[in-house]
Amino acid sequence: MLHFDSDYMEGAHPRILEELCRDNGSQHVGYGLDGICDEAKDRIRKACGAPDAEVWFLVGGTQTNRTVIDSTLRPYEGVVAAESGHISVHEAGAIESSGHKVITLPQHDGKIDAAELRDYLETFEHDENHDHMVRPGMTYISHPTEFGTLYSANELRQISRVCHDHGIPLYLDGARLAYGLAADGTDVTLHTVAECCDVFYIGGTKVGALFGEAVVITRPHLIDGFFPQIKLNGALLAKGWLLGLQFNTLFTDGLYERIARNAIVQVMRIKRGFAEKGYRQLFGSPTNQQFLILDNETMDRLRKDVSFSFWEKYDDDHTVVRFATSWATKPEDVDALLQLL
Amino acid sequence: MLHFDSDYMEGAHPRILEELCRDNGSQHVGYGLDGICDEAKDRIRKACGAPDAEVWFLVGGTQTNRTVIDSTLRPYEGVVAAESGHISVHEAGAIESSGHKVITLPQHDGKIDAAELRDYLETFEHDENHDHMVRPGMTYISHPTEFGTLYSANELRQISRVCHDHGIPLYLDGARLAYGLAADGTDVTLHTVAECCDVFYIGGTKVGALFGEAVVITRPHLIDGFFPQIKLNGALLAKGWLLGLQFNTLFTDGLYERIARNAIVQVMRIKRGFAEKGYRQLFGSPTNQQFLILDNETMDRLRKDVSFSFWEKYDDDHTVVRFATSWATKPEDVDALLQLL
Amino acid sequence: MLHFDSDYMEGAHPRILEELCRDNGSQHVGYGLDGICDEAKDRIRKACGAPDAEVWFLVGGTQTNRTVIDSTLRPYEGVVAAESGHISVHEAGAIESSGHKVITLPQHDGKIDAAELRDYLETFEHDENHDHMVRPGMTYISHPTEFGTLYSANELRQISRVCHDHGIPLYLDGARLAYGLAADGTDVTLHTVAECCDVFYIGGTKVGALFGEAVVITRPHLIDGFFPQIKLNGALLAKGWLLGLQFNTLFTDGLYERIARNAIVQVMRIKRGFAEKGYRQLFGSPTNQQFLILDNETMDRLRKDVSFSFWEKYDDDHTVVRFATSWATKPEDVDALLQLL
Amino acid sequence: MLHFDSDYMEGAHPRILEELCRDNGSQHVGYGLDGICDEAKDRIRKACGAPDAEVWFLVGGTQTNRTVIDSTLRPYEGVVAAESGHISVHEAGAIESSGHKVITLPQHDGKIDAAELRDYLETFEHDENHDHMVRPGMTYISHPTEFGTLYSANELRQISRVCHDHGIPLYLDGARLAYGLAADGTDVTLHTVAECCDVFYIGGTKVGALFGEAVVITRPHLIDGFFPQIKLNGALLAKGWLLGLQFNTLFTDGLYERIARNAIVQVMRIKRGFAEKGYRQLFGSPTNQQFLILDNETMDRLRKDVSFSFWEKYDDDHTVVRFATSWATKPEDVDALLQLL
Repeated sequence: MLHFDSDYMEGAHPRILEELCRDNGSQHVGYGLDGICDEAKDRIRKACGAPDAEVWFLVGGTQTNRTVIDSTLRPYEGVVAAESGHISVHEAGAIESSGHKVITLPQHDGKIDAAELRDYLETFEHDENHDHMVRPGMTYISHPTEFGTLYSANELRQISRVCHDHGIPLYLDGARLAYGLAADGTDVTLHTVAECCDVFYIGGTKVGALFGEAVVITRPHLIDGFFPQIKLNGALLAKGWLLGLQFNTLFTDGLYERIARNAIVQVMRIKRGFAEKGYRQLFGSPTNQQFLILDNETMDRLRKDVSFSFWEKYDDDHTVVRFATSWATKPEDVDALLQLL
Repeated sequence: MLHFDSDYMEGAHPRILEELCRDNGSQHVGYGLDGICDEAKDRIRKACGAPDAEVWFLVGGTQTNRTVIDSTLRPYEGVVAAESGHISVHEAGAIESSGHKVITLPQHDGKIDAAELRDYLETFEHDENHDHMVRPGMTYISHPTEFGTLYSANELRQISRVCHDHGIPLYLDGARLAYGLAADGTDVTLHTVAECCDVFYIGGTKVGALFGEAVVITRPHLIDGFFPQIKLNGALLAKGWLLGLQFNTLFTDGLYERIARNAIVQVMRIKRGFAEKGYRQLFGSPTNQQFLILDNETMDRLRKDVSFSFWEKYDDDHTVVRFATSWATKPEDVDALLQLL
Repeated sequence: MLHFDSDYMEGAHPRILEELCRDNGSQHVGYGLDGICDEAKDRIRKACGAPDAEVWFLVGGTQTNRTVIDSTLRPYEGVVAAESGHISVHEAGAIESSGHKVITLPQHDGKIDAAELRDYLETFEHDENHDHMVRPGMTYISHPTEFGTLYSANELRQISRVCHDHGIPLYLDGARLAYGLAADGTDVTLHTVAECCDVFYIGGTKVGALFGEAVVITRPHLIDGFFPQIKLNGALLAKGWLLGLQFNTLFTDGLYERIARNAIVQVMRIKRGFAEKGYRQLFGSPTNQQFLILDNETMDRLRKDVSFSFWEKYDDDHTVVRFATSWATKPEDVDALLQLL
Repeated sequence: MLHFDSDYMEGAHPRILEELCRDNGSQHVGYGLDGICDEAKDRIRKACGAPDAEVWFLVGGTQTNRTVIDSTLRPYEGVVAAESGHISVHEAGAIESSGHKVITLPQHDGKIDAAELRDYLETFEHDENHDHMVRPGMTYISHPTEFGTLYSANELRQISRVCHDHGIPLYLDGARLAYGLAADGTDVTLHTVAECCDVFYIGGTKVGALFGEAVVITRPHLIDGFFPQIKLNGALLAKGWLLGLQFNTLFTDGLYERIARNAIVQVMRIKRGFAEKGYRQLFGSPTNQQFLILDNETMDRLRKDVSFSFWEKYDDDHTVVRFATSWATKPEDVDALLQLL
């Protein structure tokens, strides 16, 4: 069976496991107060061109979104997101559970539009009843989006400007950030992200780590008391150095970029393979998730040998499915898949 | 100045004040455990044709919505509502603040559609990822809606059936219920509401009371521990008999129906008056709120003598405004308004 | 039957009902944005000697405590209170429900001790693990306390200084404040309270109003977004002028002080009456609640004609009971009670 | 430097790392729905003698406590715990943050007393005001306690009976459970725990795993919707098989018991070593944490070569300190420590 279901089906990059094994005899203080975490934070600050940023390590994406958003907002504030955003749809109400509304904007290939955001914020401010409404206190975007699409640097700058014109921090969910940075044709770099966003996270779980997300806070004093808020959200890892060690490894010798690139190379082979056979794609995704429109017959045939994700019904005879690659995808698995087309 | 801004600009019906003054020398036990509350509850049960219903008195609408919804839902559940529902837009995030998502469906003149509700519930249940999504645990409707429109008895029964087919309670926000029941052409009675809904509230604040809403729970055991949940939501009135006294008065000798009817009679005079002058209405509202499309010149002229609510911009030359009447609207005020058209 | 159960068994002072009846024909804008509220706020600011204070009106005590405390604290902060404080024991978990721990200190006749508070705060700050603990973000006291006892002006100043030395606001629950101010021998005035506390509330429900509490915020910018936070807590009264009208009346011509004094005069007659018969009191309360130790035989005998509150078992033969008077207590009821001793 | 600060200073038992490396090439479905988790759950059910128990894997202790407690309680319920319980003191308000009060009972060497628990529950139920108080909805104990002490099987059974007599589930925090089971003289086994508790967790983080806690629910239907509640609490690990793999390894060939035993053997050497030199202990702990009373001179001398935890000041000349061993403590480190005494 060939697996293209998601990008978190494999363990860790071998170098991470090597480091883990090498370090296993050592003793460390807990809760991320160790030296390995310090080293990893420095590497991340350097990679972001943000020497004064605060860096924190958490375990997973939903946990990170919940903790960052709840720690930033005041009780009467909500977070603005695309209607297709992960926090809007697929986090089982984690944001609402922490007391905050997710205010949705229309999505355009998974992205929000700076002009629509400005329009929404201005409309809110001018609404005579706005004290009876949820105040937008943060904007959330994901890059790549849930549909694998990317913002351009210009789009990020515009969204950032709208947020700052209205005194609202911009938060970027980078669960798959590496796959965005490694995509062909993007002009967004880690520096762009750090420059545009007040807080963002660099995903490890889906890009070579066993688990782990690195939160980068570029705006000073954005969040007070973040340590106890991580703790009370159940997001403080006792053996915090395990997170530091993984990010330290990923941010050494360009490993993070390199392994993300593999996912892109392999997914593009898949994309071309389907295109050559005449299959259409739903979004023009340049990243490691491809959404393809298959006739049901082909879909059923492929499923005998390949696992991939159902996305949605397209029409009575066609279905949208998702193929995902990862840092660990083997070229020979893609070869085998292409043979089956 | 003539006031048609809203239906909560006046104090209480004189009979309520009389009762209040008459009772003022008496002493009562607190928290709604007094005899007047008991009497009022009995009258409400009778009026609803629901002899076994539980009845509780709370102070205001947002408080009631928050307390009922949070007390019914499990932590991983949300409440389904029209995108224009009061809890979706104008309660400053009260529902989310209590930990629950408001899941929105499209509104059609302020109403949700039974078929769309069924479709949404079925799609949710069949979604492979539904354990990562917010489970719909209650349906919220308002009657009249925020746009003054009404469900038919048949529509209510259909929505009720959809909810019950999916094991979800139906909750009706009756802040303006009396104005719905008193409307021309409606086939919905208090009995219909009690028959279709698992829990609903009968609004007092907007219909003759100083304040107060009566929650009616027709489904046994729907909510456990409602008393402490009212208390912890800050919704327990120390002098609970003040609520009982008001509802007791409203439900004596048909006062509640009678005074609601006045609002309808007066609003229909306004509606006809505008129609005769050629002004259009946005919704075909049969209740005490009328949404009219005025050219800006007329709007500005009227504003010198009349206060009413801005609703939304219609086009560059026209504006949608709201005229509301209440149980207390004086015929002579409407006369004066009609003179100004 | 004679009733000395509590101080919220009667409606409102007749002058309030008169005002209510007089105003009932008028129309007002909602949510406390009306002119009567403005006038009442001015009177309260003047009475407190705090011309720059913010004043807000809420409906009841638990609601006020929940809204003020949750609006002030950050998510990782708790509120320090006496173990016997109302928020610690008798609010059904309202504070915890809003996400915050009530951190308890020992009570001494219902009061906290400034030195113990300082000791607790210093210990917290020096605890190496304090980032794993709940940060004290506010101090709550009640005056009179739940046991009817009073702080001296000096005690309030000491507690205030401790709070401010540690950067923590002091909040005073004044549900029965008037009875404290009217007590014999107290040196605490409204000016003292306003000077020592960053935020406090002046109780109306128990002192002549149908309902209502006036929140006074003396520290600028203590709470941001208080209006929407009142709303989302379900604590915003639609007909807000009803609160303004009541406080306006209470703060006209010294009504508030005068009617509180009646409660003290009457309760002292009760106190002396029991003392003369040899009954002991549990606390030396100078306010409108008296805690008496009765032998069970006497208690049972009295109960035939008088209702009062069970407080706690004292020993096998004795019980502690509470007698409460109010602004409305009639001298002839006290006469009748004394006859029964 | 010798480290006896805590029991979570080391990585994982080598066999776990071996398994991790061996499995690293494989692909798995996420969220704990994989076969390794199934296998691990079976082993745990077997070890507990609870073939029908539900087993779930979470990442850390605070997260587990928060998620289990919030998922079990109704909004108006709190959890009863010792005043020294981890949830009472050292979880930064995680329980309150989820909306629930921690109701504290006195601790006796870190334990609660069955008779005091019964007394508290009965007093609550008979309190006329209990609807204004937080209802006890669960009892929390830790075994070993935060002071390293242990319940006897009889004590557990008594507490369990009290809980069940009052319809309240018993929850046991087993962060260090293995060290309790491996202690000399205990009559508590995993079977005892499963028999007495409605839900408990078996700690992995402190006993050989990199991270991970196994929640065992023995009472059917105790928690509904646990999966989405794990998710919304940010506690769902994407690569869930990493947890299954670790517990599978720990519960193979008695590894879990064996490595816990090492901690006991080593800590007892330390205990005896200090005792022989005349140092006293604060609690008679039979587990891997020893609380010793050192004169300050000795403490300062030892600190040059050994790290251990400050616990509290004993008197002006003495300090209580904690020495902790773990599954990974090396005999030669203990040798070196003993040399220093």
